[in-house]
Amino acid sequence: MSRIWEGRGRRVEIVEVGPRDGLQAEPVFVSTEDKVALVDALSASGVAGVEVTAFVSAGAIPQMRDAEAVLGQVRRPPGVLLGALVPNRRGAERAIAAGAQELNLVMSASESHNLANLGMDRAQSLAALSRSAALAHDAGLPVNVSMSCSFGCPMEGDVPEDELLEACVRCVAEVGAQGVTLCDTTGMAYPTQVARLTEAFLRRLDGTRLTLHFHDTRGMALANVLAAIDAGADRFDAALGGLGGCPYAPGASGNVCTEDLVHALHWMGYDTGVDLDALLAASRRLPALVGHAVPSALLAAGRRLDLHPPPPRPAGRGQRPSMETTP
Amino acid sequence: MSRIWEGRGRRVEIVEVGPRDGLQAEPVFVSTEDKVALVDALSASGVAGVEVTAFVSAGAIPQMRDAEAVLGQVRRPPGVLLGALVPNRRGAERAIAAGAQELNLVMSASESHNLANLGMDRAQSLAALSRSAALAHDAGLPVNVSMSCSFGCPMEGDVPEDELLEACVRCVAEVGAQGVTLCDTTGMAYPTQVARLTEAFLRRLDGTRLTLHFHDTRGMALANVLAAIDAGADRFDAALGGLGGCPYAPGASGNVCTEDLVHALHWMGYDTGVDLDALLAASRRLPALVGHAVPSALLAAGRRLDLHPPPPRPAGRGQRPSMETTP
Repeated sequence: MSRIWEGRGRRVEIVEVGPRDGLQAEPVFVSTEDKVALVDALSASGVAGVEVTAFVSAGAIPQMRDAEAVLGQVRRPPGVLLGALVPNRRGAERAIAAGAQELNLVMSASESHNLANLGMDRAQSLAALSRSAALAHDAGLPVNVSMSCSFGCPMEGDVPEDELLEACVRCVAEVGAQGVTLCDTTGMAYPTQVARLTEAFLRRLDGTRLTLHFHDTRGMALANVLAAIDAGADRFDAALGGLGGCPYAPGASGNVCTEDLVHALHWMGYDTGVDLDALLAASRRLPALVGHAVPSALLAAGRRLDLHPPPPRPAGRGQRPSMETTP
Repeated sequence: MSRIWEGRGRRVEIVEVGPRDGLQAEPVFVSTEDKVALVDALSASGVAGVEVTAFVSAGAIPQMRDAEAVLGQVRRPPGVLLGALVPNRRGAERAIAAGAQELNLVMSASESHNLANLGMDRAQSLAALSRSAALAHDAGLPVNVSMSCSFGCPMEGDVPEDELLEACVRCVAEVGAQGVTLCDTTGMAYPTQVARLTEAFLRRLDGTRLTLHFHDTRGMALANVLAAIDAGADRFDAALGGLGGCPYAPGASGNVCTEDLVHALHWMGYDTGVDLDALLAASRRLPALVGHAVPSALLAAGRRLDLHPPPPRPAGRGQRPSMETTP
């Protein structure tokens, strides 16, 4: 039996991306006050970082039109990295001015997705990322690159491993990124692939901070996290309530759900440093915030040892409750 | 990195329980004709077995009132074990008369759940199971015992490992069961526990066929399957479409979804012998059958290499599609 099933106190860092990757998919505007309260609850829960917002054009994503206000008003607890996603140089300028502690830049591992998502090819993206990163570095801020479609592109299919790693190497060598996030943008990752790519990344990019970002589109997010941990990773994006989704993959579900992931890792003996009660309290407020139920298993079913009273017994002798046949 | 992430052609058997554990939770009656067609599609897909129906009182579970008709009309492909769940001696008589190829008897690992679910204590259940098993053995049929709440009881919490294993040993030694299914009735199992109990079972009950039965209540079903495989198990219950649920655990989701499980295992290199296309074709008919959407990730999102065309580009120069910020 492998050591992966026994955490033995091994540390796993959680980066909460719900306020950005989750809320950006929500059509109804969440008030600045509610966003700030959400980020504050999350940054107080023990996560390693929060992606607070995105500095994009208000026309493209109206939900993020209050990026400056949100980042300006959130609390800044020590030890919690408050990042912001920036798609371009203008976004970088805004994020730096608003006090982001890390800039998260974006490109895609596949040419098709980069063209469709960013309107340029990957070589152009690398050049653009370098310009944004230069601004961050001038301001003394670290840079992370989120590499979309690292585990497959919904238009092209699998991305050759060499191509992916080469793009990551260039993000470090040319852009100057301190960290890279391998993003399973549309939930195409599977554990075998995750273990292989994680090992390859850590071998090739020793010293670069690796984060992995999974969506639960095909039900494999937790297994993918475990495969990555087994291969040496220790840092994962997750979204409270399992918020998120991607219009490129119809029917796609959201990010791996923070509270479900933390609950599973804790029972397995991993140490995330996260207060699950605090997460659940914040998650319970999400449906009112976004106006619909969220795909959190824990919110629906409770923790595994949240016990229930026995159901009422039937009155007549010889009768059985209707669940007699459910093993 | 552990060998668990690389299936390397290792065989994993799937037992389809949707027609029983799935449909019994459905309030609207599914016609006998539709049930027969569903079972026939499943038994032709390459699964190792199908739990076809349950021989329970029509008053307790009206959905199963056509058990004889269903079992009498389904095709019987060679190599596919057609089982039936029986809660008592009367059910055993009916199942044998109707041509079940295996009887699946039921008891609970916890005293509280056994009392609530079966109206007797575990000692009484073992005696009752022995009487049903004797009928099966007289008819030359094998017996399996599904041990509910093996990974925790929603009323009591964790079941001591010794108590669970002792009950399993008595099912083999006293009841004469050829197989035991460890059932995670309300989705309380977690991978560390699954690996440990699977190892303990195989050590203590060498020679008894072990099946595991997970619900995805807290999002850990696939990880639990992988933990069990890593510890030596090779046979799992699953329900098409992820049908199922349990009124004992409010908010509980269904059984691990057959097509999602098979899809994941195939990509990981395991050999289930199951035709995923055939499963998906059958799963696509489920929503019409049960009158609501089913929690199948694959039905919503497709297989990981089902590709999509690029989204339409925006008209204006310099504009970006709204997904520019989704890594």
